[in-house]
Amino acid sequence: MAAKIDPGRFFEDFRLGETLVHATPRTLTSGDQALYTALYGGRHAFYASAAFAGACGLAEPTLDPLLVFHTVFGKTVPDVSPNAVANLGYAEGRFLRPVTAGETLDATSEVIGLKQTSNKKSGIVYVRTTGRSGGETVLSYVRWVLVRKRDDASPAPAEQVPETAPAVAADDLPVPPGLDFSGYDFAAAGAPHAFEDYAIGEKIDHVDGMAVEEAEAQLATRLYQNTAKVHFNQFERAMDPSGRRLVYGGVVISTARALSFNGLQNAGMMLAINAGRHVNPFFAGRTIFAWSEVLDKAELSTSVGALRLRLVATADRPCADFPDKDDEGRFPPEVLLDFDYWAAIPRRGS
Amino acid sequence: MAAKIDPGRFFEDFRLGETLVHATPRTLTSGDQALYTALYGGRHAFYASAAFAGACGLAEPTLDPLLVFHTVFGKTVPDVSPNAVANLGYAEGRFLRPVTAGETLDATSEVIGLKQTSNKKSGIVYVRTTGRSGGETVLSYVRWVLVRKRDDASPAPAEQVPETAPAVAADDLPVPPGLDFSGYDFAAAGAPHAFEDYAIGEKIDHVDGMAVEEAEAQLATRLYQNTAKVHFNQFERAMDPSGRRLVYGGVVISTARALSFNGLQNAGMMLAINAGRHVNPFFAGRTIFAWSEVLDKAELSTSVGALRLRLVATADRPCADFPDKDDEGRFPPEVLLDFDYWAAIPRRGS
Amino acid sequence: MAAKIDPGRFFEDFRLGETLVHATPRTLTSGDQALYTALYGGRHAFYASAAFAGACGLAEPTLDPLLVFHTVFGKTVPDVSPNAVANLGYAEGRFLRPVTAGETLDATSEVIGLKQTSNKKSGIVYVRTTGRSGGETVLSYVRWVLVRKRDDASPAPAEQVPETAPAVAADDLPVPPGLDFSGYDFAAAGAPHAFEDYAIGEKIDHVDGMAVEEAEAQLATRLYQNTAKVHFNQFERAMDPSGRRLVYGGVVISTARALSFNGLQNAGMMLAINAGRHVNPFFAGRTIFAWSEVLDKAELSTSVGALRLRLVATADRPCADFPDKDDEGRFPPEVLLDFDYWAAIPRRGS
Repeated sequence: MAAKIDPGRFFEDFRLGETLVHATPRTLTSGDQALYTALYGGRHAFYASAAFAGACGLAEPTLDPLLVFHTVFGKTVPDVSPNAVANLGYAEGRFLRPVTAGETLDATSEVIGLKQTSNKKSGIVYVRTTGRSGGETVLSYVRWVLVRKRDDASPAPAEQVPETAPAVAADDLPVPPGLDFSGYDFAAAGAPHAFEDYAIGEKIDHVDGMAVEEAEAQLATRLYQNTAKVHFNQFERAMDPSGRRLVYGGVVISTARALSFNGLQNAGMMLAINAGRHVNPFFAGRTIFAWSEVLDKAELSTSVGALRLRLVATADRPCADFPDKDDEGRFPPEVLLDFDYWAAIPRRGS
Repeated sequence: MAAKIDPGRFFEDFRLGETLVHATPRTLTSGDQALYTALYGGRHAFYASAAFAGACGLAEPTLDPLLVFHTVFGKTVPDVSPNAVANLGYAEGRFLRPVTAGETLDATSEVIGLKQTSNKKSGIVYVRTTGRSGGETVLSYVRWVLVRKRDDASPAPAEQVPETAPAVAADDLPVPPGLDFSGYDFAAAGAPHAFEDYAIGEKIDHVDGMAVEEAEAQLATRLYQNTAKVHFNQFERAMDPSGRRLVYGGVVISTARALSFNGLQNAGMMLAINAGRHVNPFFAGRTIFAWSEVLDKAELSTSVGALRLRLVATADRPCADFPDKDDEGRFPPEVLLDFDYWAAIPRRGS
Repeated sequence: MAAKIDPGRFFEDFRLGETLVHATPRTLTSGDQALYTALYGGRHAFYASAAFAGACGLAEPTLDPLLVFHTVFGKTVPDVSPNAVANLGYAEGRFLRPVTAGETLDATSEVIGLKQTSNKKSGIVYVRTTGRSGGETVLSYVRWVLVRKRDDASPAPAEQVPETAPAVAADDLPVPPGLDFSGYDFAAAGAPHAFEDYAIGEKIDHVDGMAVEEAEAQLATRLYQNTAKVHFNQFERAMDPSGRRLVYGGVVISTARALSFNGLQNAGMMLAINAGRHVNPFFAGRTIFAWSEVLDKAELSTSVGALRLRLVATADRPCADFPDKDDEGRFPPEVLLDFDYWAAIPRRGS
């Protein structure tokens, strides 16, 4: 009988240009959205209220784009990263259209780059992952990850490092079909601040802090059917120097994003992920804080603008002083995440 | 650029008669009800079974009134109580009609009273909160809360203490339209005890105990989008003498209410909240117990009666001896909650 | 006034042939399925994807059979096992048809056997439990449980031990109406292994490990409205030698079953439970591992086969060496569960 357990691909198993078909299509429902709310406490009105989404021209009820992202990401784990050493970065992420409760997502990834590391024990795999619903692309992003080799002596593949854009260009931002903020209800959404009220370079301390428990991290990660063993296998993790399960980085992203409501109440709709790095690992029991910086602005339609935002998350460190990397690019140990994205926001003057 | 973080109102910021429009409309779905069940384990058949609700003349599926209460309450927190010292009490709560999965709730609060405390450092704010669905009121209640002053030297507003009824009068109880218990299935609901089987003054020890974990308290509180930082910010709470996050009082109410199934199986439908006090804070890790006392009875229709019930919850103290306040009104430290409400119950003789 | 708290049946209260009508009908929704996914992380495609279920001829969305089992089991607890000493075993479990989100389940149990133990302090109660939706049986199983006597001096009932089949015969396996695997998408489901790829006697180490937290165990058990106090009342459990809440055995079953995806990707649809024993108690905080053995095979239609599988779960012990009972039938202390079931699996050759 053939072995039934797939040990997963090692670096030398990836072929440039191949397409990985990921398993387990997943229907996302209002139950998943309820759990997403309970896990992070997000308050952006599009995803909390079907009526609010409908009034903005969206299908009802619309799911949080990060729930879509984590679901698609989770599917890639068994094929891309079971033997990963580290998740290195994201780029060129675009949410091509909002996803409505009841849609079924599946995903594939194309291997777009390979680069062996200098010690020949591992290599960087670059994939472009596509999430689809009914054959239509709803999400596309590039991710690169450091993967162990099975055998250090395996020959290195031809080195190919893809060029990725430092950020999704404003012209390439996917504006949801029908999106119209001309009747946007600022009071219902929670604050009066519109596109015009944010300045490039502005920094916002989101003030609030949110502890994350082991049970919460596991519930979230299983909801996304992400099977990476570092998140679940405490028996094995007890032998790691940390002694702890690693919390899935997506939990940090979603927690920080929910915290960012306080200051970015109307920038609720994520349109694109420009870049992202998990700077330090996060272990449960600590409290996450976050701050944001406005990196850029773009006008998408008469009623819709977009902010390019940098979201920095920390553990057990409030962000009144905006903890950041130093001149040599090194982050303090409390910083967890450096995440760069675009979000839609209503324009005032329409 | 204007500050994007709202520090929230202090006592001197409230104006008698003003209406606060609360943010974030919220669509409640069968996903929220599933989480509510998982968080407390309630077994009252109206909310567990769409078919049972339908057989009693309710729209299907009907949501637990306390899920509605916590959702509306959560909306008020950023506007009413971010600078609160203590949540002092509830009165005149009425569930005007049941809420069905799929409805979107929003809320406003009117400031109906203000009273500075004698030390001039804080004051009591009285609000009447209204929860609505599609413009129709589904819940109304009065709450008063002790709020810090920004500046002790700020002048005191004219003192106005609203008169609230000690209990919702039986004639004012909102009976859900169409509610009919003439075909009530006592076996399916779990016990034979009807309206006629309860006597005023009767006390019931609910026997069971339920531990509450930090993760459960946080999941519940986020589900209600309640953002009070005492429930989440462990980093800051570590500097409090308790060193612990405070569990949202609504978790205690809902846990005790679910425990009260054992003895009040057929009094499942909360119609009104007469009064409520959180007597002592609750920290996760302890086990909640509860007992009830029948305070009053009322006949609402040929098939529907109502019990006025007092629900007392404790931590790590079984309730066989009905722990209660002493002659001077002081509660033992294990008592958490003193809650007074009306619930519908089938009459036997119809 | 009559006592409102039912202490539950003791051994001498059960009558051979009587039917217990269990309380609290329960509508299972996509919200319950979302929670089930978040609690265990199952990836079997029928239950993750409405589209996948539909392509196999099932109604959409189909719920995981173990969610149905735990829901029905939970209803029996107040009537069968509140005074139980131990849950001894399962037999003759048959999932007569898949259950779709939105169906309302209720349950009854017939007492089919009674046997006092030799020390006269307790007795074994055998029940056949039937779960129904709209009057139609969806699940039937036999369970036996050791129940305390109220009074050791009570006379023993006539001893009646029912004969139960050691396994559900292949001819008696309920094949879901319309089930058709002729177009089964192996890539979407996660592995190429079909009915023909498994051999009787084959053992599979499922490799992965999953920690279970107290909060997760409680959330799951409440979701099923299982009220057994050993799962919740930490105050009382602190006086037990273990000092700990017992985790509901169904959490172990579902966790091990979800882990078994890795190796049994296409054997996702449980059809029958042949036998099951909780060999040792499980306490939260430990990591569950699992291994499976193929006990038998059967051809059910041109496209559908079935595997009879033994699922063994352990705590804090990886299963590369297939930990099992010794020659005298004694299990090592790390083994939690010995569970025997049938699952449908696509045939390759159709």
